[in-house]
Amino acid sequence: MTMIIAVIGAGSCSQEIYRMAEEVGKLIAMNGAVLLTGGLGGVMEAASKGTQEEGGITVGILPGLSKDEANRYVDIPIATGLSHARNAIIARSADALIAIAGEYGTLSEIAHARQAGLPVIGLNTWSLSRSGEGDSSIIPARSPEEAVNMALSLVPD
Amino acid sequence: MTMIIAVIGAGSCSQEIYRMAEEVGKLIAMNGAVLLTGGLGGVMEAASKGTQEEGGITVGILPGLSKDEANRYVDIPIATGLSHARNAIIARSADALIAIAGEYGTLSEIAHARQAGLPVIGLNTWSLSRSGEGDSSIIPARSPEEAVNMALSLVPD
Amino acid sequence: MTMIIAVIGAGSCSQEIYRMAEEVGKLIAMNGAVLLTGGLGGVMEAASKGTQEEGGITVGILPGLSKDEANRYVDIPIATGLSHARNAIIARSADALIAIAGEYGTLSEIAHARQAGLPVIGLNTWSLSRSGEGDSSIIPARSPEEAVNMALSLVPD
Amino acid sequence: MTMIIAVIGAGSCSQEIYRMAEEVGKLIAMNGAVLLTGGLGGVMEAASKGTQEEGGITVGILPGLSKDEANRYVDIPIATGLSHARNAIIARSADALIAIAGEYGTLSEIAHARQAGLPVIGLNTWSLSRSGEGDSSIIPARSPEEAVNMALSLVPD
Repeated sequence: MTMIIAVIGAGSCSQEIYRMAEEVGKLIAMNGAVLLTGGLGGVMEAASKGTQEEGGITVGILPGLSKDEANRYVDIPIATGLSHARNAIIARSADALIAIAGEYGTLSEIAHARQAGLPVIGLNTWSLSRSGEGDSSIIPARSPEEAVNMALSLVPD
Repeated sequence: MTMIIAVIGAGSCSQEIYRMAEEVGKLIAMNGAVLLTGGLGGVMEAASKGTQEEGGITVGILPGLSKDEANRYVDIPIATGLSHARNAIIARSADALIAIAGEYGTLSEIAHARQAGLPVIGLNTWSLSRSGEGDSSIIPARSPEEAVNMALSLVPD
Repeated sequence: MTMIIAVIGAGSCSQEIYRMAEEVGKLIAMNGAVLLTGGLGGVMEAASKGTQEEGGITVGILPGLSKDEANRYVDIPIATGLSHARNAIIARSADALIAIAGEYGTLSEIAHARQAGLPVIGLNTWSLSRSGEGDSSIIPARSPEEAVNMALSLVPD
Repeated sequence: MTMIIAVIGAGSCSQEIYRMAEEVGKLIAMNGAVLLTGGLGGVMEAASKGTQEEGGITVGILPGLSKDEANRYVDIPIATGLSHARNAIIARSADALIAIAGEYGTLSEIAHARQAGLPVIGLNTWSLSRSGEGDSSIIPARSPEEAVNMALSLVPD
C-alpha cells in the first residue's frame, strides 16, 4: 500500500505558513506518498495544492456532510459528518503527520496520532509539557524539506 | 472532483456474488469513477479487485484502527476506528451506491444513504416496506452493467 | 447496571404516534429502565416526556454539537456532533430497542441494532425482506404495553 | 437541564491521583452536577466512585462496543464503538472539564474541549505552548476543591 502522510494545520493561515504547507505538499508528492488532510482551507488547502501540482493524490477527510466544503485541490473528499471527531480519523489513517502551526483542532490531531504511536513532525506548532516536565512528542523540524524527510524516515515498516 | 461510487455488501459472500461485485468494480473503473468500499473482504474485496484490474483507484473506509485489515486491493485505506459507525461515512461520501446482497451492515448503509438523498441501486439485496406499504428506496438492477449505468445516470450534477 | 431501553422514531410525527411514544416512555420508567433516544422532537420527545412524567431518567444522544437542540424532557444530553453516525451509538448502547413508525434514520438504527444482535420491537414501523425472502428482524408489537413487555423480556441477561 | 462536569484522565493511575479523582467526583455530586467520564479505569473509575458514593449520577462514554467494559461505578454506560474518537464526544457534552494527570487521550479531550470553547481545569496535567509562546488554555487548580469550584463558576449560563 502507498505511504500516506497527513498535513495538519488551521483552516486559515498567513501567507508564510501557506507557502510552507504548499512546499510540504509538493515534497510529499515528489516522494510518491498520498497526502491526507482535513480537506478545508488554509494549511490543508496549501498542502493539497502543492501535492496536486506535482501530480500526487490528495484525500480530504471533511468534518461536514457535503463534499462541496472540500477545497478545490482535493481529489478524494470523504464527507464524514463527524465534525471535530473526524480529527481522530485523520490522525489514525496516516503513516506519519506533519503539523504546521495550527490551533486546537491541530492539537487534537497531534494527541490522537501520538496515542496511536504515530510520528508527528512539527513546523512552528504546539509544544507540550506534562506534570511540569518536558515532552518530546512533537519532533521539531526547521524546514519543509527536513519535515518531509523526517516523516518518511519515521514511518514504521 | 472525480465521481465516487460506493459498492456495499457483506464481508463474506458466495462465488457468484463475488464475481458480480468484481464485474461492478471493473465497470466503475472503466467509467472513470473512484471506488469506495468498507475495505474488508467478500463484496468489498471483489469490487476493489475489479476496479484495480482496470486501473481505477480504490478507497477503503475501515471499521478498525489498523490499515492492515484492508484487503489487498485497497489503494487508500482510511482506518476510522469507528466500528460500524463508519457505515454512515461510506454512505455519505459516495455520489451513488450499489448494494450487492448484504447483511445488516449493508442495510445500515442503505438507510444512511437514503437519509442523505443519495441513489441506491440493488443487486439481489434487501427490499423494504414501511407501515405496511411498499417502498421504492432501493432501485433494483438485473446485472452489473445495469447497476453501474443506473448509478452513473442518477448521480446529481 | 440499570437496563437501558431505546425508543427510536422520526423527529416529527402525528398526534397518534406521539401519544403511542409517550405511553411507551411511561411504561419504560414504570419498569425502572433508563430511556435512551436521539434527543430531538417527535417520537423522541414524546417518549422522553412520558419517561420523565413517571420519574424516570432520559438520555438524549444528539446529532449536533449543542445541547440546546435537545427536547426539554432530556435529562442527560450527549452532544455527539456526529450527525447521523450517532444513530449507531443509540443502537449499540441500548439493551433493547422499540421502533415507532420512523424514516430512514430509524431504519439505520434498526440495522445497527440487529448487527449488534440486539432485539428490536416494532410499532407501525419498517418491515424488511432480503433477496426476495421474508425477514423477522423486527418483532411486531400491537400496543405500547406489548412493545415494552417484549423489550424487557428479550434483554439478554 | 442538569449541569454536566467531565473528569478526564488516564485509565490507570497512582493511588494519589486516584484519591484526588475520587474527591473531585464526590464534590461534583455534592454540587448537584452529573459526572461524565470515559467510563474505564483509573481516573475515570475513581471519579465515578466518588460521585456514586455521594448519590450522584455517573455517565460513561465508552470507546468499545460493549457496556461490560464500563467500571462498576458507571450508572449509564454509552457504548460508542468509536474508539478514541469518543474523546471528542466527552469533551463536547460537558459544561466544563477537569483534567487530572493524563496521557495523550486526555490531551485530545483537552484540545477538543478548548476547540468548543469549554473551560478546562487542570490538576497535575498537561501544559501547552504554541509557536514558542505560553498558552493559558488549561486553568491550573491546586486541589480538588479548587478544581470543582472553578469548573462550576466557569460554566457559561
